[in-house]
Amino acid sequence: MPEPIDFYFDFSSPYGYLASERIDELAARHGRKVRWRPILLGVVFKHTGAAPLTLVPLKGEYSLRDFARSARFLGVPYTHPAKFPLATQHAARAYYRLRDQDGGQAWERARAFAQAVFRALYVDGRDVSSLEVVLDLLATQGADREALSQALAGAALKEQLKAECAAALAMGVCGSPYMIVDGEPFFGVDRLPQMERWLTSGGF
Amino acid sequence: MPEPIDFYFDFSSPYGYLASERIDELAARHGRKVRWRPILLGVVFKHTGAAPLTLVPLKGEYSLRDFARSARFLGVPYTHPAKFPLATQHAARAYYRLRDQDGGQAWERARAFAQAVFRALYVDGRDVSSLEVVLDLLATQGADREALSQALAGAALKEQLKAECAAALAMGVCGSPYMIVDGEPFFGVDRLPQMERWLTSGGF
Repeated sequence: MPEPIDFYFDFSSPYGYLASERIDELAARHGRKVRWRPILLGVVFKHTGAAPLTLVPLKGEYSLRDFARSARFLGVPYTHPAKFPLATQHAARAYYRLRDQDGGQAWERARAFAQAVFRALYVDGRDVSSLEVVLDLLATQGADREALSQALAGAALKEQLKAECAAALAMGVCGSPYMIVDGEPFFGVDRLPQMERWLTSGGF
Repeated sequence: MPEPIDFYFDFSSPYGYLASERIDELAARHGRKVRWRPILLGVVFKHTGAAPLTLVPLKGEYSLRDFARSARFLGVPYTHPAKFPLATQHAARAYYRLRDQDGGQAWERARAFAQAVFRALYVDGRDVSSLEVVLDLLATQGADREALSQALAGAALKEQLKAECAAALAMGVCGSPYMIVDGEPFFGVDRLPQMERWLTSGGF
């Protein structure tokens, strides 16, 4: 089996959401799986000096138009959230908790949860920064709400997410979405066509 | 005749160069002309807080790889300049001087000069921040080297380039390349596919 594709994103990243709606089918066309790896862009921004796009002069107005147009271009439903940007640490920690549970389906279940978070935010307009909303979404994935509520309040998951973000930085992750294929990095949903050619030809 | 496409760029922008090698043929497929409009990214960065990509932690290393890979993806020759980033005010002023000369071919001649500047920098590795190199490139376009040397030393062209940059900011230009089609803005060489769909369908 070829190596899975690593897919880094922040749940609050519109371009991360757009990539999430296309990356698994793209990878599958080339016999690849995808490892979804939520991170916190705030940690990355401390290194790059960047800020949420919508808050940047000139780029802010353009970005709102570009999020919606890029979604139409890709055929993905998109409604810009009323609350934006927003904190996503609860959702990211819950993801890793699900992923590391026993059982061979853990990656798949965590992925289904991640997709539910993205769609709750960008299709249904729910405030996924809320712990209650995250727990509700976990419950719909068949998770034990009480156990996860306790886990999310503990120090272990906080440390784990910190470690995941540090590991992403060490891999060079400079924004969201960021994909790595056999060591080759691709930054941005607009790099999916390059990534696909890379998968097709083994580099170019 | 439909409106021309406005194409804003800085001569020091690798993605601007890549777009310059594709935009005229793309526009021509849809019966459009392109108005090339060099600006200074330094002026834009004062508003957006951005910095030359190669100098940004994490993004710097990625960007060098992405410039070269994006060039291969588009089939455009590219060698990263030894001196980078570099100042481009001489080249930009010379462009507007050529464009505003008498005669119906002024836009086309200025465009040919702009292409020569880009290729001198990204194919031949010449230091186009040098006034002498700019004058040499002007001479190969059949311009009067002595007259242009005097014009480039004067205040009028400096003021004109300032005004062009201010006008670009007023249009929302937030980086390079930045294209406007019938009022719709597209930022980045990776937005050319969206721009082409826009031209094909009159919006989407």
